[in-house]
Amino acid sequence: MQLSDLQTPAVVIDAGRVARNIDRMQRAADAAGFRLRPHAKTHKLPALARQQIARGAVGICCAKPSEAMVFAEAGIEDIRIPYPVHPSKQQQIIALIDRVRVSIIVDNAEIATAWAEVMARAGRTLNVLVKVDVGFHRCGVDPVSPEAHHLISLVSALPGLKFCGLLSHAGHGYHAASETALKLIAEEEVNALTRLAAHMRHRGVEVEEISVGATPTARFSLRHKGPTEMRPGNYVYFDRTQAGLGAATFDDCALSVLSTVVAKHPGRIILDAGSKTLSNDGARGFLPLEGYGALSPSPSGDLRPDEAFSIERLSEEHAIVRVADGASDVKIGDRVRVLPNHSCVVSNLVDVVHMADGDTVVESVPVAARGRIL
Amino acid sequence: MQLSDLQTPAVVIDAGRVARNIDRMQRAADAAGFRLRPHAKTHKLPALARQQIARGAVGICCAKPSEAMVFAEAGIEDIRIPYPVHPSKQQQIIALIDRVRVSIIVDNAEIATAWAEVMARAGRTLNVLVKVDVGFHRCGVDPVSPEAHHLISLVSALPGLKFCGLLSHAGHGYHAASETALKLIAEEEVNALTRLAAHMRHRGVEVEEISVGATPTARFSLRHKGPTEMRPGNYVYFDRTQAGLGAATFDDCALSVLSTVVAKHPGRIILDAGSKTLSNDGARGFLPLEGYGALSPSPSGDLRPDEAFSIERLSEEHAIVRVADGASDVKIGDRVRVLPNHSCVVSNLVDVVHMADGDTVVESVPVAARGRIL
Repeated sequence: MQLSDLQTPAVVIDAGRVARNIDRMQRAADAAGFRLRPHAKTHKLPALARQQIARGAVGICCAKPSEAMVFAEAGIEDIRIPYPVHPSKQQQIIALIDRVRVSIIVDNAEIATAWAEVMARAGRTLNVLVKVDVGFHRCGVDPVSPEAHHLISLVSALPGLKFCGLLSHAGHGYHAASETALKLIAEEEVNALTRLAAHMRHRGVEVEEISVGATPTARFSLRHKGPTEMRPGNYVYFDRTQAGLGAATFDDCALSVLSTVVAKHPGRIILDAGSKTLSNDGARGFLPLEGYGALSPSPSGDLRPDEAFSIERLSEEHAIVRVADGASDVKIGDRVRVLPNHSCVVSNLVDVVHMADGDTVVESVPVAARGRIL
Repeated sequence: MQLSDLQTPAVVIDAGRVARNIDRMQRAADAAGFRLRPHAKTHKLPALARQQIARGAVGICCAKPSEAMVFAEAGIEDIRIPYPVHPSKQQQIIALIDRVRVSIIVDNAEIATAWAEVMARAGRTLNVLVKVDVGFHRCGVDPVSPEAHHLISLVSALPGLKFCGLLSHAGHGYHAASETALKLIAEEEVNALTRLAAHMRHRGVEVEEISVGATPTARFSLRHKGPTEMRPGNYVYFDRTQAGLGAATFDDCALSVLSTVVAKHPGRIILDAGSKTLSNDGARGFLPLEGYGALSPSPSGDLRPDEAFSIERLSEEHAIVRVADGASDVKIGDRVRVLPNHSCVVSNLVDVVHMADGDTVVESVPVAARGRIL
């Protein structure tokens, strides 16, 4: 089957670029002495998780217990859930423990204690990392607070829990205004974790793992000593935001949406891919990036966007594209490709993605872990 | 089963409010002499489409042929696809024609001609409405242009097509800055269609249907003579945007997301529902509405938001909620409810919704037409 045989909109994955992205990140991690544990939320595909592990990853991350179960059932043996899973999900976590090596994060003493009680009752042990807030201000303890020291000591002492180490996610890297700012965020993340680890080791607590995350900061994190693991996810596909943050070139981007022009009016064309395929996620980047994706007017070949086309608005099933004067002529029925702002959410919107080698569709793969919000 | 037995995040539908919303809109349409043809994209549930038809709707709208097929297979007999379906979807449209009464829209003469050729070859007739742009500037022909007259004449003359009438969608109503502006948009929509219909009738073209759409403008459209049909969709659930546009009160909103507090830090709480459940769609309304939904700190009862809680940011699996000083104490493990900005996209994100009567879960229903983008 060829790309031209697909009904649109269709999410197309360039299998060669995926393999190259996986290889490059693994090579970089290996060279720096970091274990690589990719976040599988980007692809949600057991086949790609297996490919990452075959290339050297120590395991994967999943966002929620139900997402983890999809990968556990598909044979992935080591799954970290870098999420403050609440003990109301104890049945799901115990089911995972009984099947694979699983770890979660905690950022609260009461919840850590509750998990210890659950595990004591269940006769299991839960691997736990303490989540450290390195500036994103989502979850995590302040690394220089007595609360952090207390929580780490508590987790390392509680029966039923195995304290594995410290974990952070520099999600604020997505909002960095420059390469320099991003570099600094990565540096601060490593410093916060290594200092906290040193402090706790000095107090007699063994801190085995120091795990940092996020694709934008990955290239800078690798320059530092201290972390034992990195957890980028998006790098497997990349997207317009990663290009905007200098983490990828357009030639690295592996996921695109093949779409048909369904209407044309003065100054605009309308595509059959809207927010139900592309999402309304905005783009991030050092330079302001407007719109809901970058359009390439060719149905195949490289994904370099043509700036004469600007995806100004989305409805659920329409992209409204402003066409500049002098742009190449695109007609109703023509097929174009959109590089989405955020590839992870595109994976979550569609039931199937099409793995392609050039213009050949190698396989249409169900997105096995789509929609696993529990 | 009770709401408290659900794993979170969970999309909960108040069945009583749905019934009331369906009844009220039908009563208003009946009183004004409009046929009601709800857009099913909001709920994507055959059971609710049947409920709408049982209460008096003449049929439904669907966004794409694949969405229509779900409802056709579920026994809905009259389906309009107010989308400029491209002839590359001819097999799907023919399959629908062979099963139900189906209609689509066109806004282009070449595409109308192409559809006529498809139908001639296939020995079928396709019901077609001409899409008129009443100011949203997405699809549709300019109602005062010679192009509009030409297209309508063409469609009414082409063998293989049955010209059914004119159709518009005042999507720009969602951006109205005031009740007065919204009223004016609805008035202009009706005027544009009725004038164009009069012009075409004067030229000897029969214009059977005049179909207007959108929930925000519905209450104003009904005050006018001329249209034969209205196609609101969102009214079945409503959402924060509709409350912001005066189309609903919080007591009318039937869809909410039950969510658990999974982390708490100074000035903020974190919920287990992120953009994978709520979407990153912003809110619309006459007054600026910030954030990604409105939070009600009670797991049951009415949905009135507590403004001490502001959903400032979403990650895919987290909502980061700013908590004002003096807000009621919400602890980790507590359950809260979020009224989303946009209910249609929430339906498209989850595999299942939970129909509730008060705190009792009456039925957990698969979202049969979720993700039907083709």
